[in-house]
Amino acid sequence: MYYAVIFTSTRTEVEEGYAEMAMRMVELAKQQAGFIGLESARSEIGITVSYWESLEAIKAWKDNTEHLLAQEKGKTTWYKNYKVRIAKVEREYEF
Amino acid sequence: MYYAVIFTSTRTEVEEGYAEMAMRMVELAKQQAGFIGLESARSEIGITVSYWESLEAIKAWKDNTEHLLAQEKGKTTWYKNYKVRIAKVEREYEF
Repeated sequence: MYYAVIFTSTRTEVEEGYAEMAMRMVELAKQQAGFIGLESARSEIGITVSYWESLEAIKAWKDNTEHLLAQEKGKTTWYKNYKVRIAKVEREYEF
Repeated sequence: MYYAVIFTSTRTEVEEGYAEMAMRMVELAKQQAGFIGLESARSEIGITVSYWESLEAIKAWKDNTEHLLAQEKGKTTWYKNYKVRIAKVEREYEF
Protein backbone atom coordinates (compact mmCIF):
# COMPACT_ATOMS: atom_id res chain seq x y z
CA MET A 1 0.00 0.00 0.00
CA TYR A 2 1.28 3.43 -0.89
CA TYR A 3 -0.02 6.93 -1.58
CA ALA A 4 -0.34 9.15 -4.63
CA VAL A 5 -0.29 12.94 -4.58
CA ILE A 6 -2.15 14.19 -7.64
CA PHE A 7 -1.15 17.77 -8.42
CA THR A 8 -3.14 19.39 -11.24
CA SER A 9 -2.42 22.96 -12.28
CA THR A 10 -3.01 25.73 -14.76
CA ARG A 11 -0.02 27.96 -15.44
CA THR A 12 0.18 31.71 -15.78
CA GLU A 13 2.21 33.08 -18.69
CA VAL A 14 5.21 33.73 -16.45
CA GLU A 15 8.07 31.50 -17.60
CA GLU A 16 10.83 33.12 -15.57
CA GLY A 17 12.16 30.74 -12.98
CA TYR A 18 9.49 28.12 -13.57
CA ALA A 19 11.50 25.36 -15.30
CA GLU A 20 14.33 25.72 -12.78
CA MET A 21 11.92 25.50 -9.86
CA ALA A 22 10.12 22.50 -11.33
CA MET A 23 13.38 20.62 -11.88
CA ARG A 24 14.65 21.55 -8.45
CA MET A 25 11.44 20.33 -6.79
CA VAL A 26 11.77 16.95 -8.52
CA GLU A 27 15.37 16.66 -7.31
CA LEU A 28 14.36 17.67 -3.81
CA ALA A 29 11.38 15.29 -3.70
CA LYS A 30 13.66 12.40 -4.72
CA GLN A 31 15.81 13.09 -1.67
CA GLN A 32 12.87 12.94 0.75
CA ALA A 33 12.36 9.91 2.99
CA GLY A 34 9.47 7.80 1.76
CA PHE A 35 9.60 9.03 -1.84
CA ILE A 36 8.77 6.28 -4.36
CA GLY A 37 8.48 7.98 -7.75
CA LEU A 38 7.05 10.82 -9.81
CA GLU A 39 5.36 11.22 -13.21
CA SER A 40 4.54 14.47 -14.92
CA ALA A 41 2.88 15.71 -18.11
CA ARG A 42 1.69 19.09 -19.32
CA SER A 43 -0.43 20.15 -22.26
CA GLU A 44 -3.46 22.39 -21.59
CA ILE A 45 -3.14 21.60 -17.91
CA GLY A 46 -0.31 20.06 -15.96
CA ILE A 47 -0.61 16.84 -14.01
CA THR A 48 2.14 15.63 -11.70
CA VAL A 49 1.60 12.48 -9.68
CA SER A 50 4.13 11.62 -7.00
CA TYR A 51 4.12 8.38 -5.01
CA TRP A 52 4.94 8.06 -1.34
CA GLU A 53 5.25 5.36 1.29
CA SER A 54 3.11 7.10 3.92
CA LEU A 55 1.04 10.16 4.81
CA GLU A 56 3.87 11.21 7.14
CA ALA A 57 6.28 11.30 4.20
CA ILE A 58 3.81 13.46 2.24
CA LYS A 59 3.41 15.83 5.19
CA ALA A 60 7.19 16.16 5.56
CA TRP A 61 7.49 16.96 1.85
CA LYS A 62 4.70 19.54 2.02
CA ASP A 63 6.47 21.20 4.97
CA ASN A 64 9.97 21.13 3.45
CA THR A 65 11.30 24.69 3.73
CA GLU A 66 12.47 25.06 0.15
CA HIS A 67 9.25 23.45 -1.08
CA LEU A 68 7.21 25.91 1.03
CA LEU A 69 8.97 28.82 -0.67
CA ALA A 70 8.20 27.29 -4.08
CA GLN A 71 4.55 26.84 -3.08
CA GLU A 72 4.32 30.51 -2.11
CA LYS A 73 5.96 31.71 -5.30
CA GLY A 74 3.77 29.30 -7.22
CA LYS A 75 0.67 31.04 -5.91
CA THR A 76 1.91 34.55 -6.66
CA THR A 77 3.71 33.91 -9.94
CA TRP A 78 3.53 30.60 -11.79
CA TYR A 79 0.08 29.14 -11.26
CA LYS A 80 -3.37 30.48 -12.02
CA ASN A 81 -4.75 27.68 -9.92
CA TYR A 82 -3.87 24.26 -8.70
CA LYS A 83 -5.40 21.38 -6.83
CA VAL A 84 -3.77 18.71 -4.70
CA ARG A 85 -5.40 15.38 -3.97
CA ILE A 86 -3.89 12.83 -1.61
CA ALA A 87 -5.06 9.32 -2.41
CA LYS A 88 -4.32 5.82 -1.16
CA VAL A 89 -3.47 3.44 -4.01
CA GLU A 90 -5.62 0.36 -3.53
CA ARG A 91 -4.86 -1.65 -6.65
CA GLU A 92 -2.90 -1.40 -9.84
CA TYR A 93 -2.24 -3.27 -13.05
CA GLU A 94 -0.20 -2.61 -16.12
CA PHE A 95 0.43 -3.52 -19.72
CA MET B 1 -14.93 10.25 -0.33
CA TYR B 2 -14.33 9.34 -3.96
CA TYR B 3 -11.87 7.46 -6.13
CA ALA B 4 -9.26 8.40 -8.70
CA VAL B 5 -8.13 6.20 -11.58
CA ILE B 6 -4.62 7.25 -12.56
CA PHE B 7 -3.85 6.09 -16.09
CA THR B 8 -0.25 6.68 -17.21
CA SER B 9 0.87 5.64 -20.66
CA THR B 10 3.57 5.77 -23.29
CA ARG B 11 2.33 5.91 -26.88
CA THR B 12 3.55 4.11 -29.96
CA GLU B 13 4.00 6.16 -33.12
CA VAL B 14 0.65 5.02 -34.50
CA GLU B 15 -1.62 8.06 -34.78
CA GLU B 16 -4.38 6.45 -36.83
CA GLY B 17 -7.60 6.27 -34.86
CA TYR B 18 -6.01 7.38 -31.61
CA ALA B 19 -7.46 10.89 -31.24
CA GLU B 20 -10.95 9.66 -32.19
CA MET B 21 -10.75 6.82 -29.68
CA ALA B 22 -9.47 9.11 -26.93
CA MET B 23 -12.29 11.62 -27.50
CA ARG B 24 -14.88 8.87 -27.71
CA MET B 25 -13.70 7.31 -24.43
CA VAL B 26 -14.04 10.66 -22.66
CA GLU B 27 -17.58 11.03 -24.02
CA LEU B 28 -18.41 7.48 -23.01
CA ALA B 29 -16.93 7.83 -19.52
CA LYS B 30 -19.01 10.97 -18.95
CA GLN B 31 -22.14 8.92 -19.59
CA GLN B 32 -21.26 6.28 -17.01
CA ALA B 33 -23.04 6.15 -13.67
CA GLY B 34 -20.79 7.39 -10.88
CA PHE B 35 -18.52 9.46 -13.14
CA ILE B 36 -17.34 12.68 -11.47
CA GLY B 37 -14.72 14.18 -13.76
CA LEU B 38 -11.58 13.68 -15.84
CA GLU B 39 -8.29 15.50 -16.39
CA SER B 40 -5.70 14.68 -18.99
CA ALA B 41 -2.27 15.86 -20.12
CA ARG B 42 0.36 14.48 -22.44
CA SER B 43 3.97 15.44 -23.10
CA GLU B 44 6.64 12.70 -22.90
CA ILE B 45 4.12 10.46 -21.20
CA GLY B 46 0.37 10.75 -20.93
CA ILE B 47 -1.48 11.02 -17.63
CA THR B 48 -5.25 10.82 -17.42
CA VAL B 49 -6.93 10.93 -14.05
CA SER B 50 -10.63 10.17 -13.87
CA TYR B 51 -12.72 10.53 -10.73
CA TRP B 52 -15.50 8.17 -9.65
CA GLU B 53 -18.02 7.82 -6.87
CA SER B 54 -17.27 4.17 -6.08
CA LEU B 55 -15.21 1.11 -6.95
CA GLU B 56 -18.36 -0.38 -8.51
CA ALA B 57 -18.58 2.54 -10.93
CA ILE B 58 -14.92 2.02 -11.88
CA LYS B 59 -15.50 -1.70 -12.43
CA ALA B 60 -18.52 -0.99 -14.63
CA TRP B 61 -16.46 1.46 -16.69
CA LYS B 62 -13.59 -1.03 -17.05
CA ASP B 63 -16.07 -3.66 -18.27
CA ASN B 64 -17.95 -1.38 -20.68
CA THR B 65 -18.04 -3.21 -24.02
CA GLU B 66 -16.85 -0.35 -26.18
CA HIS B 67 -14.18 0.50 -23.61
CA LEU B 68 -12.99 -3.14 -23.61
CA LEU B 69 -12.50 -2.97 -27.38
CA ALA B 70 -10.52 0.26 -26.97
CA GLN B 71 -8.38 -1.39 -24.27
CA GLU B 72 -7.59 -4.30 -26.59
CA LYS B 73 -6.74 -2.05 -29.51
CA GLY B 74 -4.73 0.12 -27.12
CA LYS B 75 -2.52 -2.85 -26.30
CA THR B 76 -1.97 -3.91 -29.89
CA THR B 77 -1.74 -0.50 -31.54
CA TRP B 78 -1.60 2.74 -29.58
CA TYR B 79 0.32 2.12 -26.36
CA LYS B 80 3.83 0.85 -25.76
CA ASN B 81 2.85 0.42 -22.15
CA TYR B 82 0.42 1.74 -19.61
CA LYS B 83 -0.32 1.50 -15.94
CA VAL B 84 -3.58 1.92 -14.08
CA ARG B 85 -3.77 2.76 -10.40
CA ILE B 86 -7.03 2.91 -8.49
CA ALA B 87 -6.77 5.16 -5.45
CA LYS B 88 -9.11 6.44 -2.77
CA VAL B 89 -8.94 10.23 -2.42
CA GLU B 90 -8.49 10.96 1.26
CA ARG B 91 -8.00 14.71 1.28
CA GLU B 92 -7.67 17.62 -1.10
CA TYR B 93 -6.98 21.33 -1.15
CA GLU B 94 -6.67 23.91 -3.84
CA PHE B 95 -5.44 27.35 -4.77
